[in-house]
Parts: sequence; structure tokens; C-alpha cells
Amino acid sequence: MARAQVQTQLEEDLRRTCWVCFATDEDDRSALWVKPCKCKGTSKWVHQACLQRWIDEKQRGNSTAKVSCPQCNTEYIIIFPKLGSVVYLMDVADRIIYKTCPFLAGGIFVGSVYWTAVTYGALTVMQVFGHTEGQSKMEQADPLFLLLILPAIPVMLILSKMVRWEDYFLKIWRKHSSKVPFLNLLFPGSQNRLQRVPAQPSPLSDPVSATRVLCGALVLPTVATMAGKLMFGNIRSNFQRTLMGGVAFILIKGVLKIYYKQQQYYRQAQRQVLDYPSDSE
Amino acid sequence: MARAQVQTQLEEDLRRTCWVCFATDEDDRSALWVKPCKCKGTSKWVHQACLQRWIDEKQRGNSTAKVSCPQCNTEYIIIFPKLGSVVYLMDVADRIIYKTCPFLAGGIFVGSVYWTAVTYGALTVMQVFGHTEGQSKMEQADPLFLLLILPAIPVMLILSKMVRWEDYFLKIWRKHSSKVPFLNLLFPGSQNRLQRVPAQPSPLSDPVSATRVLCGALVLPTVATMAGKLMFGNIRSNFQRTLMGGVAFILIKGVLKIYYKQQQYYRQAQRQVLDYPSDSE
Repeated sequence: MARAQVQTQLEEDLRRTCWVCFATDEDDRSALWVKPCKCKGTSKWVHQACLQRWIDEKQRGNSTAKVSCPQCNTEYIIIFPKLGSVVYLMDVADRIIYKTCPFLAGGIFVGSVYWTAVTYGALTVMQVFGHTEGQSKMEQADPLFLLLILPAIPVMLILSKMVRWEDYFLKIWRKHSSKVPFLNLLFPGSQNRLQRVPAQPSPLSDPVSATRVLCGALVLPTVATMAGKLMFGNIRSNFQRTLMGGVAFILIKGVLKIYYKQQQYYRQAQRQVLDYPSDSE
Repeated sequence: MARAQVQTQLEEDLRRTCWVCFATDEDDRSALWVKPCKCKGTSKWVHQACLQRWIDEKQRGNSTAKVSCPQCNTEYIIIFPKLGSVVYLMDVADRIIYKTCPFLAGGIFVGSVYWTAVTYGALTVMQVFGHTEGQSKMEQADPLFLLLILPAIPVMLILSKMVRWEDYFLKIWRKHSSKVPFLNLLFPGSQNRLQRVPAQPSPLSDPVSATRVLCGALVLPTVATMAGKLMFGNIRSNFQRTLMGGVAFILIKGVLKIYYKQQQYYRQAQRQVLDYPSDSE
């Protein structure tokens, strides 16, 4: 029994075929063989060199990747000569650098955004208070305080731009519009009974709306300065004039927006789907 | 013949069923009907109100989206009351703002990156030349020139970091290493005949490598300053000292990297796949 088994084993070993290059022992007597996995029969045999090439291909340049037998999924046992201590230290350093770099790059990105926000804040202060007054105000302030308050300026502008007060106002108005009928005279068509309640456009749903909030928020101080000079040229304080200009701009824009949205609302409420024109008509 | 056709048409119209709510004329005598598409037979009929709701759902808050019949794919003809000229102007303005905002946001992003690069460049000049000397140098220079040259500093650092001179050196060395055998004594195992040529690790293939290039490039001036103070403390000129420190650092790091890579190369060349340990052994 044991003898028969040894016999079979020997015969099998003599019939071995490399599953990469399909060569047998007779084709190449000097090649090194390896049976690296749990596969049974002749399919377990493979040339050491062929398997190395195959592993290289699977690893795709990442020499530490694990590779398994495609048939039985056994992970190959790959050994390397021992590392010298210098190379070992370098290896550790390389790994640490590899792991920290993404975080460092993230830090650089955050720092870049922060620095832009600080710069924007400083420019806004100089715009709102006037160049010289703004500069002297910032020079008098505590630098640490400035590094907190200046980047907060664009953040606050963006956050406040995200408050859609016109929408709240419209919602309340639509609820109670029957009580102030004279306001409805502004809107042609609003006297007719609405055929339907139109669907609400979804706010901030797409990336374009997000860029719109960003641009609108960051442009506001410039617009406020311009509006202040245009409408309140007699006010001497830069800050007061710009503030008044900003408030006036926001109010005028809000009223126009409410008017526009309400008009669109009535238009949507009165939309009609037509019969498809048949050929006979 | 014509009379029979009219008859059928009438009968068909009386049997009409809304394809949204499945109600017939008998269910609701007052509802408005519409046949908005090319569909034939009773399936062409739908309630105006039901279709409006269905269109609202399809449009998902985008009231200008086109909607077609799910059956015959005919685009519905939707009409609105005429726009007043004020609302028309607002509509045009809204569209223009909607189209320009993504570009403006892109501009803000580019400007932010540019401004960070300018700041980094200015900090680097102050670091390399020393705080006071760097500042006076920048104050003397033409502002326009500065706005070009300062952001070029990080760009040049990153680009030069992407030149993998160690790899070129290694390639040449591996080709001609047999001619300078004494150098090979540095590498244990290199005297043995290599069993195979290992696969080359692919450079810059993954995002982590990209962050590594970025971090390495931006940290270089700081490291160069430190290396200069450490190794060339006797040089008085800040610029010369930092330059020497940088060159020394790059050379030392390059030599170490070449040594490390060549070691890894030999290690990879000598890797072996082991037989899977069978239970009987």
C-alpha cells in the first residue's frame, strides 16, 4: 500500500507540467520546480521562474502585495533574504513618510484655504473701512485675534447667504395673501383662481447653486461698497456708507427676487398641457 | 363610412380612461381631459390635473425640464401665460448669473491656489535670504515681477521634485555595474548571480505618491535651511548657506535612496516562492 503510494507519487512527479508555460520535465531538465499551493495532481506544479514572472504581473509594481493561486486561492509563501539594519531603518522611514504624506497634503490644502480666507477677510476690512483706516485698524488689533476674525468674514458671508429669507417670506405670504388683496394687484393673473399648486423648485440641489451661493457671498462687500457710494454718497464714514449700501442692496434684491419668484409661481400654476395636434385637424 | 368613423370616435371618447388615475368620464364628469401625445386609442387620454402632477414629479423641481410621454416618447407641449417685460429681464439676468457662476467659482479656486503660491514663495524668499534681507529684496523688486516670480517658486520646486534622477542613475549603474566591481561590495548578495530581473516599481502611479512629491517639494526650503545651519554654520551669507544645505541634503538623500533601492532590487531578485507545506511532511 505504502509502496504503491510512493510509486504513484514518483510517476506523478515525472509527469509534472508547468501551468504557466506548459513545459514538462522532458522539455527542460534544469528548471527549478515549486508546488506553492494546495492544488492536487499535476496542476500543482509550476516553474519557479514562471511563477515569479506571473507574480510580478499580478503585483503590478507593488512588491509587497499578496498573491494567491488563481485555482485554490492559497496565498503564496514568498521569502526574501534578511534585511540589513540600515535598510530596515530606511524601510521603516519610508513607510512612515508614505503614511503621513496624505495627511500633510490635506494640511497643506486646509492651510491654503485658510490663508485665502484670511487674505479675503483683510481685503474686505480694507474695502469696508477704506484702505488706510482698515489697515490701521488691523495693525492695532491683536494678531492672534485677527487670524481668527479675518477668515471668519468669508465664512459668515457664505453662511448668511445660505439663509433663504425670501423663501420664508414667500411661504408666509402665500399662506396669508388673501388677507392683503391689494398686494395681489401687483401680480397679473393672481386674481384668477389658481388651477393648481405648482411644485416647489428644490433649493441648493445642484452644484451650480452652490457656486452661486459662494460667488454671491464673496462679491457682496464689493457690491455693498458700490451701492453705498451710489446711494449714500453724503455719508462720510466709509463703514456706515458701505453697511447702508449693503443693506439697501440686499433689500432691493430681496424684493425683486420675491416679485420674480411669485410671478414664476403664478406662471407655473397656470401652465397647460395642450392636445397633440392630430393630422386631421 | 365617414359617419361610422365619427360614431367610433364618439364612442371612444366616451370610454376614455385617465392613464394616471384610471378614472373614466363616469367617475368624474367635471374633470378636464387632454390627449397630449401620439398614442392611439383610449390610452391617449389623461386628466389635465393628473398629467400636471405627473410632470411635476418627472421635473423634480426643475420647471424648465422637457417631459415626454412614457409610451410614445412625444414631448408634451406645455404653454405658460406670457411673461411681463420686467420678469423677462429678471429671467435673462437669472440665466446669465446661473451660467457664469461656475466659471467665477473656478476663478476663485484658481485665484486661491495662486495666492497661496505667492505667499509660499514670499515665505521661502524670507527663509532662504533671512527675514530682513528677503523682505528688503522683495520691497525693492517690481511688484508685477514678484507676482510672477513668487508663485513660480513652489511650481519649480514641485517640478524639480518630479525629476527622478536617482532612478536614471540606478538604471545606468545596473547596466554598467560589472565594470566597477568594487562598488558592488557595498551590497551583500550582489556578488551572487541574480536569479531574475525584478519588476520595476511603477513611479507616481498612486495618489499617495503624488502627495509625497507635493510635501517633499514644499518642505525642501525648510529642510535646506536646517541642513545649512547644521552643516555650514561658518558660511555667513544666508542664501549661500541654505543653498549649500539644500544641495547637501539632496545629495545625501539621493545616495541613501540609491542604496536603499539597489538593496531592494537585490532582495526582490532573490525572492523565492516556497512549496506549500503538505500535511504529510
